[in-house]
Amino acid sequence: MDLDLVFLGTSASMPTAQRAPAALLLRRGGERLLIDCAEGTQRQLLRSSVGLPELEEIFLTHYHADHFGGLPFMLKTFALRGRELPLTVYGPAGLHELFGALRRLFGRLNYPLELVEVEPGEIFERPEYRLETFPVRHGMAAVGWALVEEPRPGRFDVEAADAIGVPPGPERGMLQRGEPVTLPDERVITPDMVLGPPRPGRKVVISGDTARSEAVVDAARDADLLVHEATFAEEERGRAQETLHSTAADAAEVAREAEVGLLALTHLSTRYFGPELAGEARAIFPETVVPKDYDVIEVPFAERGTPQLVKGGALHRREEAVSSAAQ
Amino acid sequence: MDLDLVFLGTSASMPTAQRAPAALLLRRGGERLLIDCAEGTQRQLLRSSVGLPELEEIFLTHYHADHFGGLPFMLKTFALRGRELPLTVYGPAGLHELFGALRRLFGRLNYPLELVEVEPGEIFERPEYRLETFPVRHGMAAVGWALVEEPRPGRFDVEAADAIGVPPGPERGMLQRGEPVTLPDERVITPDMVLGPPRPGRKVVISGDTARSEAVVDAARDADLLVHEATFAEEERGRAQETLHSTAADAAEVAREAEVGLLALTHLSTRYFGPELAGEARAIFPETVVPKDYDVIEVPFAERGTPQLVKGGALHRREEAVSSAAQ
Repeated sequence: MDLDLVFLGTSASMPTAQRAPAALLLRRGGERLLIDCAEGTQRQLLRSSVGLPELEEIFLTHYHADHFGGLPFMLKTFALRGRELPLTVYGPAGLHELFGALRRLFGRLNYPLELVEVEPGEIFERPEYRLETFPVRHGMAAVGWALVEEPRPGRFDVEAADAIGVPPGPERGMLQRGEPVTLPDERVITPDMVLGPPRPGRKVVISGDTARSEAVVDAARDADLLVHEATFAEEERGRAQETLHSTAADAAEVAREAEVGLLALTHLSTRYFGPELAGEARAIFPETVVPKDYDVIEVPFAERGTPQLVKGGALHRREEAVSSAAQ
Repeated sequence: MDLDLVFLGTSASMPTAQRAPAALLLRRGGERLLIDCAEGTQRQLLRSSVGLPELEEIFLTHYHADHFGGLPFMLKTFALRGRELPLTVYGPAGLHELFGALRRLFGRLNYPLELVEVEPGEIFERPEYRLETFPVRHGMAAVGWALVEEPRPGRFDVEAADAIGVPPGPERGMLQRGEPVTLPDERVITPDMVLGPPRPGRKVVISGDTARSEAVVDAARDADLLVHEATFAEEERGRAQETLHSTAADAAEVAREAEVGLLALTHLSTRYFGPELAGEARAIFPETVVPKDYDVIEVPFAERGTPQLVKGGALHRREEAVSSAAQ
């Protein structure tokens, strides 16, 4: 089951020529979860190899306009396309009030729109994973989002199954799926007899906008990937504190305490290009990257490797070729 | 005095990978007039060689979201930049009501914002040109905008001046500027004695969204450049009539009747790429172009030539190079 994160917008507050404001697309198998939706997000998707999918769920972290400004226009586009599929938007307290104001922008929709206000700490259970929200520190109703997969059954131990006498065939599939089987000689074989220890699922944590916060450390504990805002460098620590944003060092300390696999910094103030923030963070937490728009981070199962940044991973091959021709 | 028009967004209703929704930048000398401001316009500017200028005036044609959706975020960006310069937004009836809804998106501004509601037909006089509004047919409060330069003084007739005995020097400058001079022999020389007939100023007309309309023909009479919407091709004439939009042929008929110099089609439905609309229009009015985003149309004084489409005229040279490398 593939799991990756597409960086659609990585700037703070306002766009630059290189970076659009906040939007992330989490892809898991065939599922597409959009986290935040700044002005221009639909076009970022259209310009990428992803295209603009018929998203079924959109998750907002808070209601500063650089995190939701593109949502009314995306809703409108879905309507113009004749969509009938329901759409659910999740966000912290104030979502209904926000949509009261936004409705002027998207008008009447021909598909069902559901708004779900979430409390920090609320958890949404799904068949194979849960979506966790957690409190952050941004001076307003705001949450972070985490996708936490359920542990997978352990690896099937073929030697143990042979030794017990489980025949090759459907019985082994049932055991792998966690179901006990009864053999022809009436012995009952339970999954624990032929499976290794459960294997951990993956965990991807997205801070949204926040000052350095212990709640994020707790939420990010042992995550494979933590996407943390890093609006400022050390030289602007005062401004970060005033505006309840993080510095690159703040984010790196959170990542170190939480012992995450990889830290990705995003939400860069327009004055930074990336390397300066990466440098400050890596002095504290070496496994840090600063993705550009259209970069992708792939998150494999632990036994297959560690999360990897794929530069331009969401660009069309043609554009990639053009972009490298221009270097 | 340079005059040109930068096509920042040329799609209708929603963006495509190639085209952003409606925005045009009219540049005259050092002045920058933005007409319409769809979602993403500030980033279209940032990605262009124009950059995002401290616009002093923005002109809206009507209040469908694909014509104003980027405005609140642009206003917010100006605020974040610490702007103090006043900004005036012009638009048809409903502008104050619209801003009541948009304020939720841009919050408090640290610079003065003035809103001017215009009646179709209202004219704004400026030192060297006037901005004319005219009624269009779009089923709601909506206007088109035209920039109409005042006639310039005629060409200075050196031979006539020599014959009359006007000495080379400041007297000739005064006459060229329209002021009479008294020669040392007390003869009064008036400008008409040494100037050719007044030379026409230039005229650029922007339809905004409209069905085919005689009012646009009247407004566009003898324009150097008419930018007319052409949302649909002939195959969708019914849909154009229903939605009060134009086909390429409608626009071409308006251009032919108004005897304009050049017709530029914009506001293309996402199903069209350009050439099919150009073909239908040129059968009626040959001098038709269908600009892409970042194309520029230069409008020289009549004695220096006709309006010219400069492909990619608002792209950085580097991007132009990359773009042609990709062909």
